[in-house]
Amino acid sequence: MRINRKRLEESMDALGKIGATPKGGLTREALTDDDRRGRDLLVGWMREAGLTVTVDQMGNIFGGRAGSDSLPSVMMGSHADSVPTGGKYDGQLGVLCALETIRTLNDEKVKTRHPVAMAIFTNEEGTRFQPAMIGSGVLAGKIPLEDAYNARDRHGARLGDELERIGYLGSEPCIPRPLRAYLELHIEQGPILEEQHLSVGVVEGIVAISWSRLTLTGVQDHAGPTPMRIRHDALVAAAEVVRGVREIPRKVGGDLVSTVGRLDVTPNIPNAIPGRVTMSIDLRGPDEHNVTRALGLLDRLIKDAARGEGVTYDLEHYWRVPRTHFDVEVVDTIEQAAKGLGYGYRRILSGAGHDAQYMAAICPTGMIFVPSRDGRSHCEEEFTPMDDIEKGANTLLLAASKLAGTV
Amino acid sequence: MRINRKRLEESMDALGKIGATPKGGLTREALTDDDRRGRDLLVGWMREAGLTVTVDQMGNIFGGRAGSDSLPSVMMGSHADSVPTGGKYDGQLGVLCALETIRTLNDEKVKTRHPVAMAIFTNEEGTRFQPAMIGSGVLAGKIPLEDAYNARDRHGARLGDELERIGYLGSEPCIPRPLRAYLELHIEQGPILEEQHLSVGVVEGIVAISWSRLTLTGVQDHAGPTPMRIRHDALVAAAEVVRGVREIPRKVGGDLVSTVGRLDVTPNIPNAIPGRVTMSIDLRGPDEHNVTRALGLLDRLIKDAARGEGVTYDLEHYWRVPRTHFDVEVVDTIEQAAKGLGYGYRRILSGAGHDAQYMAAICPTGMIFVPSRDGRSHCEEEFTPMDDIEKGANTLLLAASKLAGTV
Repeated sequence: MRINRKRLEESMDALGKIGATPKGGLTREALTDDDRRGRDLLVGWMREAGLTVTVDQMGNIFGGRAGSDSLPSVMMGSHADSVPTGGKYDGQLGVLCALETIRTLNDEKVKTRHPVAMAIFTNEEGTRFQPAMIGSGVLAGKIPLEDAYNARDRHGARLGDELERIGYLGSEPCIPRPLRAYLELHIEQGPILEEQHLSVGVVEGIVAISWSRLTLTGVQDHAGPTPMRIRHDALVAAAEVVRGVREIPRKVGGDLVSTVGRLDVTPNIPNAIPGRVTMSIDLRGPDEHNVTRALGLLDRLIKDAARGEGVTYDLEHYWRVPRTHFDVEVVDTIEQAAKGLGYGYRRILSGAGHDAQYMAAICPTGMIFVPSRDGRSHCEEEFTPMDDIEKGANTLLLAASKLAGTV
Repeated sequence: MRINRKRLEESMDALGKIGATPKGGLTREALTDDDRRGRDLLVGWMREAGLTVTVDQMGNIFGGRAGSDSLPSVMMGSHADSVPTGGKYDGQLGVLCALETIRTLNDEKVKTRHPVAMAIFTNEEGTRFQPAMIGSGVLAGKIPLEDAYNARDRHGARLGDELERIGYLGSEPCIPRPLRAYLELHIEQGPILEEQHLSVGVVEGIVAISWSRLTLTGVQDHAGPTPMRIRHDALVAAAEVVRGVREIPRKVGGDLVSTVGRLDVTPNIPNAIPGRVTMSIDLRGPDEHNVTRALGLLDRLIKDAARGEGVTYDLEHYWRVPRTHFDVEVVDTIEQAAKGLGYGYRRILSGAGHDAQYMAAICPTGMIFVPSRDGRSHCEEEFTPMDDIEKGANTLLLAASKLAGTV
């Protein structure tokens, strides 16, 4: 039993057109009109595949294929939203491989003991609404539904209102449900599989993640007549922080990574000394203690940078996800599938957060990675060869069938 | 003969309400609806004062008061646009003191030999459309009219279209005209007059100004799975440049100032390594050679920062205004007026560009400064005591009358 590569590729092309950028990437942020178009297309395909489609209070979409027994489902899934000027693989690929798995089970008239289901989670990326993975986070009981509804994008639009606007505010309760397993196929978004010429990553878990928000407040003034001696420039202090954040992994070690991805200057005009700068700080690492040590270094760094320039600051460590360990049985099942198919594979750790992170809190969970060219993602150049995608999808098909139990 | 302080203050209050911010500042960017409302109010007052009002092709507004002889006018003026979240004094004050001067001449039934005129120049600030001082720049023949029309704001709106939209695309040719003199009252925007407890600055000229635009292009990638060793982060390189720009004045000396006021990150989300950063670099100094030396240091600094992070860059030194020397006779006349009135004054250099800079290219020009509290401007805290404003306005009244010649 193998997936239909041509059909999968055609679905990828069709869905990838919605929100496509001129340079071959994708901009389809959560709960935008393009997100709605993408959802509509997927729901149509899910119905064509005979699935029972439901939408929950967070706009998470589920499609169920009945099993022979009344048992918890084996669920496969991912997300269909993208970052701005992102790629056509992140999220979308996992959803389409889940659908292709179900289509193949249909083609082969396979009966499973456990029902097999697929899921499309809302706002995984967290670029439009914070925090990221909000749909699976509410489902897992880790984020209150009301907090999620009240999240606002940078123009002030409310998540709850946007769900309703695009027609995906469902009625099904967004609460943990009994599941046999959750499986998510995703691109690696790092360089390791490609460097080692492997097609499949058997993901053992996800690194610990910490997100902080820093606001530096200096004195806004005219760039011309203000002598250097009286300046308190929020951007100069911010530049010190950006440089310092870059140095933290060298001090901490252990594969820690650190990023300032967002930085906004006020008033942001050429002839005014910046009065305020806000920025994000993202720290991740396989070792929980190293992330904690990094946060300590960050606190000291920011204090010094602010004092050096005579500016004040407000620092908030607002989101922390502990190191996730996936389920031993599920990880082994994925490994056996890849091995049995004769594919080049390795065990690997995810550096990115995924919906699987929250799902791991409520059911046995595992992930399958496929390679990312040059390790790149969250950019228009994101790419995975079709040969690797086919191998990843077949691994998913076999692992899901095994966990669901064929009759 | 003295100006009417109460009337001037009332006009300041009334005009300051249009675009007022909750914290007492002003947001009235060029050619917005609020700019139109401000212009309409001013034009109404100018007509009430008996002035002949005309609007030129750049939306510059002129009001003329006839003289006894057919001679070139003595023109006073400034601008009515503000920076975002700026103050109620920058620009507006010069326009209202010009109007108050004319109202006072009317009250006193003063006849002058030369006509006395006032001017309101379009888009002085340069925050919505670049370059700054575009209205006086076209008038002085330094900027082609078509280039000015084609300037676009950050949302793509075209200056020419916006002029038409707000009803200030005039028919009068925007070309140099014969003028007896141009006088501009403005806030100092620096700390010197306040520090020395003086009310009036007799401005001898304007520092040399250079504006550059830098784009750094790295590799946009996911902040999680991308190891530090393969990163090319445009924001890390940008932080090096911001720090380096801050150090340039220390190396060059001579009262040079340097500012990175605008900085934009792409894609600007917490979980993507910044692929592109654009920024402005503003360099100013009383000595032309020091500005040139600073640009040399800037070039080297950017080259090193880009090489260090493995990113590419594009650097454009797109605007340069040489050191402006004001007219000896006009400066002397202003000094004599302040001295004759018994006000505390000093000769001073302007660190900011003003419409007077372009006007100096076509007629004898001078400026009057009044103090800025804490040296602050381009911010909501911008403030000048009314006592100083009154003294500045009386100095303008006397200097303009002297240059126009009373009958």
